[in-house]
Amino acid sequence: MSELTHLDDKGSARMVDVGAKSVTGRTATAAGFLRASASTIAAIRDGNTPKGDVLSTARLAGIMAAKKTGDLIPLCHSLPLDNVTVDFAFQQEGIAVSATARLSAKTGVEMEALTAASIALLTLYDMAKALEKGMVIENVRLIAKTGGKSGDWSAE
Amino acid sequence: MSELTHLDDKGSARMVDVGAKSVTGRTATAAGFLRASASTIAAIRDGNTPKGDVLSTARLAGIMAAKKTGDLIPLCHSLPLDNVTVDFAFQQEGIAVSATARLSAKTGVEMEALTAASIALLTLYDMAKALEKGMVIENVRLIAKTGGKSGDWSAE
Amino acid sequence: MSELTHLDDKGSARMVDVGAKSVTGRTATAAGFLRASASTIAAIRDGNTPKGDVLSTARLAGIMAAKKTGDLIPLCHSLPLDNVTVDFAFQQEGIAVSATARLSAKTGVEMEALTAASIALLTLYDMAKALEKGMVIENVRLIAKTGGKSGDWSAE
Amino acid sequence: MSELTHLDDKGSARMVDVGAKSVTGRTATAAGFLRASASTIAAIRDGNTPKGDVLSTARLAGIMAAKKTGDLIPLCHSLPLDNVTVDFAFQQEGIAVSATARLSAKTGVEMEALTAASIALLTLYDMAKALEKGMVIENVRLIAKTGGKSGDWSAE
Amino acid sequence: MSELTHLDDKGSARMVDVGAKSVTGRTATAAGFLRASASTIAAIRDGNTPKGDVLSTARLAGIMAAKKTGDLIPLCHSLPLDNVTVDFAFQQEGIAVSATARLSAKTGVEMEALTAASIALLTLYDMAKALEKGMVIENVRLIAKTGGKSGDWSAE
Amino acid sequence: MSELTHLDDKGSARMVDVGAKSVTGRTATAAGFLRASASTIAAIRDGNTPKGDVLSTARLAGIMAAKKTGDLIPLCHSLPLDNVTVDFAFQQEGIAVSATARLSAKTGVEMEALTAASIALLTLYDMAKALEKGMVIENVRLIAKTGGKSGDWSAE
Repeated sequence: MSELTHLDDKGSARMVDVGAKSVTGRTATAAGFLRASASTIAAIRDGNTPKGDVLSTARLAGIMAAKKTGDLIPLCHSLPLDNVTVDFAFQQEGIAVSATARLSAKTGVEMEALTAASIALLTLYDMAKALEKGMVIENVRLIAKTGGKSGDWSAE
Repeated sequence: MSELTHLDDKGSARMVDVGAKSVTGRTATAAGFLRASASTIAAIRDGNTPKGDVLSTARLAGIMAAKKTGDLIPLCHSLPLDNVTVDFAFQQEGIAVSATARLSAKTGVEMEALTAASIALLTLYDMAKALEKGMVIENVRLIAKTGGKSGDWSAE
Repeated sequence: MSELTHLDDKGSARMVDVGAKSVTGRTATAAGFLRASASTIAAIRDGNTPKGDVLSTARLAGIMAAKKTGDLIPLCHSLPLDNVTVDFAFQQEGIAVSATARLSAKTGVEMEALTAASIALLTLYDMAKALEKGMVIENVRLIAKTGGKSGDWSAE
Repeated sequence: MSELTHLDDKGSARMVDVGAKSVTGRTATAAGFLRASASTIAAIRDGNTPKGDVLSTARLAGIMAAKKTGDLIPLCHSLPLDNVTVDFAFQQEGIAVSATARLSAKTGVEMEALTAASIALLTLYDMAKALEKGMVIENVRLIAKTGGKSGDWSAE
Repeated sequence: MSELTHLDDKGSARMVDVGAKSVTGRTATAAGFLRASASTIAAIRDGNTPKGDVLSTARLAGIMAAKKTGDLIPLCHSLPLDNVTVDFAFQQEGIAVSATARLSAKTGVEMEALTAASIALLTLYDMAKALEKGMVIENVRLIAKTGGKSGDWSAE
Repeated sequence: MSELTHLDDKGSARMVDVGAKSVTGRTATAAGFLRASASTIAAIRDGNTPKGDVLSTARLAGIMAAKKTGDLIPLCHSLPLDNVTVDFAFQQEGIAVSATARLSAKTGVEMEALTAASIALLTLYDMAKALEKGMVIENVRLIAKTGGKSGDWSAE
């Protein structure tokens, strides 16, 4: 028998049955980083001047992707989110993204937060790839979660 | 005016108009890595024994996500892919994924390959997260592309 | 700071966090109008004789679009609807549509009703556009809503 | 027999078979208007100051909806677009939107342009509805099209 | 090595790479049957009187599902269809459905026709299930295909 | 007036309004069969050896389709599922599939179970169609349901 919750005792993929779990408030925050050259970072920052749509495009892409998590990750439950936020910070060697998702449900929102961060980063890559194809997405990870039977957790 | 191809001269987001480009064969290969503890890697490997569905679930998630790239990345064109492949390699500190997309079109498939790799990695995370929430997605990047006006490119 | 609920204090787009709202029964009714020439209206009416599928096609398009509202309107919540209805009335200068959506949730269904009406109107346009490209969609608006903290509202 | 191209001789809904049509370059431009009070217009304009995401959210919603037209309008063909643009103009009594879609295909892009305009308008409504529920979407119509067997057309 | 075209030599799932195939006109016709009691068939037939939307709902569901085949069948290519038709015939012991799909592409449309027939049948089941839960979907199969390297084929 | 719950008293298609129904735990199990030649069954079985992805591909396709039921069946409600399982059994004349869906909601999950079974069967067909185009999907039906006002039901 597998240790993995998403495999049954024959090793077949399955959703985790959440029928017996109780509905609780839950949040999850994920983060990630797009490593880019100084000139690409500058171009994105310039594109983000008044009316420039770079970060808002990436933010919306992340928010909308979070709502599609159950359609993208095969064994995820489709759940109605209470909220998703996506934020960016320019750093010397790239752009940091963090995403927080929130809902009241029988199961957690880690995957929604991670999906929002990932798609926001891919969207930044897409908008800048004509300038630099060698950008790298790094350090996509869960920062913290609250709620649910396993309780609160945060990355050290 | 922005240097970014996805902003017009007022800084508004736009798709790149590919109407005047010619249809050519194009490929792109992307890669990424899920850093995990030895025991999590072992559990995924065990879950991949006969009939275990871990890698096949992540592979399909990547392939299906590649077909949705135009729906996920706001300014990407929706294009009919000729092929997508997603492969995995167990390494000492995690699992490496590579994804290759192929089509004949007016624009490239870099985003499809990167999206396939990202969603495959997120799916692995999802299946193992009950064991280890601290896994990290690293080094998601374009490895090589061929075709199109800008020609062939590969990461050094 | 913006007055708009969908912008945070930095002006960034956000979903409205409904985590603290209570679940109540809610309804919304929207309406709209497709202005068309007498001969186009007649053709649609004729196409709606026994077995003619014009209005049923537009009705289903509206119902199905209501279920996708959270996927179409970037900052809308995805919510499970209890019901959607779409109705049509032939008038002298065009076809009137009204759409009503209903659910029990933490947030309202105005956008679902408006989306159903809009897509139903676009579908009528699509089916008749070979006859008359100059048809105009007019007067798409909220007629009434009930439920939620802001209570009942109706257009004068 | 119906005059409508989307009904067969029994009145059943059908897609128009474009198998025998030739691929040509095609464009379509649609427009529409959101009528709102002066104070709502001002709030949207304020929300569009540096980093304010109102118009960029509505623009992206329109662009992304254009790519989903074949999924929303039941008898539309799903076609790979070369380009979509969505633009806004503040006017005294509201906000005007125009949308242009472009592709090389066997059938036209009128519905894609109209869908982009409609969803952009609905997104503006969504973002401002807490201020004014009585806003009205008006005058959604085709402005011009080029290409295809029926040739060029423009609204008088 | 597997005989199955959708597995590579390690047994991993893959799309069939159609990059080297040529674009040809292709059609496929599928059929299926919903076995139901006489009274259920009568209720569906009655529901199909003037303005009754039963068959048109099932027809549209089939047409719209055909356009989503690449999103439903994991290793199918997403292809722009030229046309889809869905037809019904009342028979003594149930309702027969046939679906035909058409396109010009590098790969066939068998799955689109079969998906249209299947979803049309499921939609009929959905609409009548309050009357009879024991209805059975039978005999869903490919009737004929034309075009492509493997040429024409029809069921005996 | 129609006997069908999905038609209103004018015969127009409608969703069943579940607003007044209470939330209860519900399950549904559906089954179906893919009739195939002995050599095709053998090829699928061989493709299912260690690392072979045939059944896991069909299983995931079924699970993911169940989550899209509300998008595929026009008058179905979109509901968050607690769980979906899809299982296969090799038989002498083909492959049997069964699918079980579970949720707590105001309406049943029969369509989700039937959709999962149907799409899993279509995916098996897709993967084996290069070997045998004449395979037939048979006997797709509801096996049992529990919960809801109409109570428990099972096929004799």
